[in-house]
Amino acid sequence: MAEGFSVAILGATGAVGTRLISQLEHSTIPVSKVKFLASARSAGKVLQFRGTDVTIEEAKPQSFDNVDLVLASAGGSVSKRLLPEAVKRGAVCVDNTSAFRMDPQVPLVVPEVNADELVNHKGIIANPNCSTIQMVVALEPIRQRFGLNQVIVSTYQAVSGAGQSALNELMDESQQVIDGEPTDPQILPTKGDKKHYQMAFNLLPQIDVFEDDGYTHEEWKMIHETKKIMLNDMDAKDIKVTATCVRVPIRIGHGESVYFEVADKHATASQIQDALANAAGVVVQDDPSHQVYPQSITAEGSRETYVGRLRPDLENEGNFNMWVVSDNLLKGAAWNTVQIAEELVKRDLVRVPEAAYQQ
Amino acid sequence: MAEGFSVAILGATGAVGTRLISQLEHSTIPVSKVKFLASARSAGKVLQFRGTDVTIEEAKPQSFDNVDLVLASAGGSVSKRLLPEAVKRGAVCVDNTSAFRMDPQVPLVVPEVNADELVNHKGIIANPNCSTIQMVVALEPIRQRFGLNQVIVSTYQAVSGAGQSALNELMDESQQVIDGEPTDPQILPTKGDKKHYQMAFNLLPQIDVFEDDGYTHEEWKMIHETKKIMLNDMDAKDIKVTATCVRVPIRIGHGESVYFEVADKHATASQIQDALANAAGVVVQDDPSHQVYPQSITAEGSRETYVGRLRPDLENEGNFNMWVVSDNLLKGAAWNTVQIAEELVKRDLVRVPEAAYQQ
Repeated sequence: MAEGFSVAILGATGAVGTRLISQLEHSTIPVSKVKFLASARSAGKVLQFRGTDVTIEEAKPQSFDNVDLVLASAGGSVSKRLLPEAVKRGAVCVDNTSAFRMDPQVPLVVPEVNADELVNHKGIIANPNCSTIQMVVALEPIRQRFGLNQVIVSTYQAVSGAGQSALNELMDESQQVIDGEPTDPQILPTKGDKKHYQMAFNLLPQIDVFEDDGYTHEEWKMIHETKKIMLNDMDAKDIKVTATCVRVPIRIGHGESVYFEVADKHATASQIQDALANAAGVVVQDDPSHQVYPQSITAEGSRETYVGRLRPDLENEGNFNMWVVSDNLLKGAAWNTVQIAEELVKRDLVRVPEAAYQQ
Repeated sequence: MAEGFSVAILGATGAVGTRLISQLEHSTIPVSKVKFLASARSAGKVLQFRGTDVTIEEAKPQSFDNVDLVLASAGGSVSKRLLPEAVKRGAVCVDNTSAFRMDPQVPLVVPEVNADELVNHKGIIANPNCSTIQMVVALEPIRQRFGLNQVIVSTYQAVSGAGQSALNELMDESQQVIDGEPTDPQILPTKGDKKHYQMAFNLLPQIDVFEDDGYTHEEWKMIHETKKIMLNDMDAKDIKVTATCVRVPIRIGHGESVYFEVADKHATASQIQDALANAAGVVVQDDPSHQVYPQSITAEGSRETYVGRLRPDLENEGNFNMWVVSDNLLKGAAWNTVQIAEELVKRDLVRVPEAAYQQ
């Protein structure tokens, strides 16, 4: 182990997978060996890691023999099937799918918020939903200093969050609309549902499938993941959260209009900006007089979460509006996953404990 | 007058102006004569009204001699200069700019909400801001039945709201991004400010210029116009309103994520849907199990306001989320203006009273 870790990337060819590779290349993790795993369809293709060719292998239980660390982003059903096999073989898994997020055995981690939860891992750590991650990175420093009672969020989510094929669909449709041709939607708003609608130059207030209560599963995730990450209890009542999630025709960089109520009614906007300016992972971009505020295209490619447009609700003391943007494929996915792995290495936690994850 | 009204359209060539013409063509207003007025640059061009050629004239004070009704959408400074001249000449003006909206002499009217205010007009009636109109159409039937304490809105506003040149910029930039070429923004987020940013595949949390308190003027409008329309007092405290306005890369059809608190804590989502289903100007599109919800591209070209995704905040009794979409150039501008004119005709109010508008 002194020479480094044997790391497997599961789902290496996707929009997140390719970024898992580049984030790992630029991480502080000592890597002695990498394996790129994917479906049989991609096996045999060659990708690069730090200038060396790596041939993609089909992911099977035995693929995880002699692997120390797995970074997974191949879809929920693949993670559900293969990660317990990896844990059995002694590999610690950081999973970017929703498969294990609400499992009480599994820490759900955003390092800036709850890295300490990593000490309790049983072999699997879950990476939260992209829209949740950037919101809690912005809210946690506020909660730490002023307390947090309530959050009302409306999202403006980029199409890359639905995968590379959805992104291709957006770009194809955009050209068709410019050319005055009909579009032929097959994927968005979500592969998992029956009807598909044009995304180009349109707004779709559906991300993921609908729950019985009228909320989408994406909205459900924002509510319950936020509570699990900030309060270690997915049903905690201490912070009320509600969400409206909307897909918008942009490629990368989710936007979020976040309205929040702090406990300390004397908190001012400039105190909150101070707390944000000193917070890990946050960059404050907030100078209206010079038209400085977070934008999707300027956040793209960066690991940070950008916050601006912070201002008090003029009629409700202790309530504020802000605008939060981050690269949904990096902090929302690949970077947060690699960042968790860096924390595991730093804390000497890249080992499956005796009381390992049980299916 | 028995044969109809002499109607002038001021600003006939713009994105709203061309729609004022078509909405007037399809209105119930008896029109004996039309005049199309615009800047000197457009004078001499020919447009059609009900199949007849109409030559555009340069707008001057004398243009309003013998005009009964003016529908204006040529920018705030033009309205400020010319509408008092029109009133002096006996013409009643419905103005689509922000020039007179907060003037206590001027009713600010959305016919479904406060048509009765028209009886107090002094020659000028103001048409509200596009994003305000569709929100109050959806909120008024809720307020009528359940009372309304608070509104927190996040907008997803179409580029056509910034005018035809902004729309052209979006489409040019979209092609440039698809082709991998650099963009050269000159207009958006707003002509009236110094810096311009790419709109294609991007989000811009600035509409109009910034006020000193950190809110944009668009957000200011949503707060104070809502109070003036619903409560006849731009600073009323009975309903608290806060807003975050964001421009998104779509062409037509503003979306709004509206969070609201009703006074009647026993109100249910299905009672609110009932109230909306029976409200003038509202179409409920709300069937998650069949993926039915308002979309921008399906609202385009229609006079209605579409409401869906109505659901209770699961942790705050009496609080709800909903999603509201309307064609910002029709109900948000041209149709609301013509609809006000129809109401004036219906109520026999197309005459300037003795106590006329004073500058």
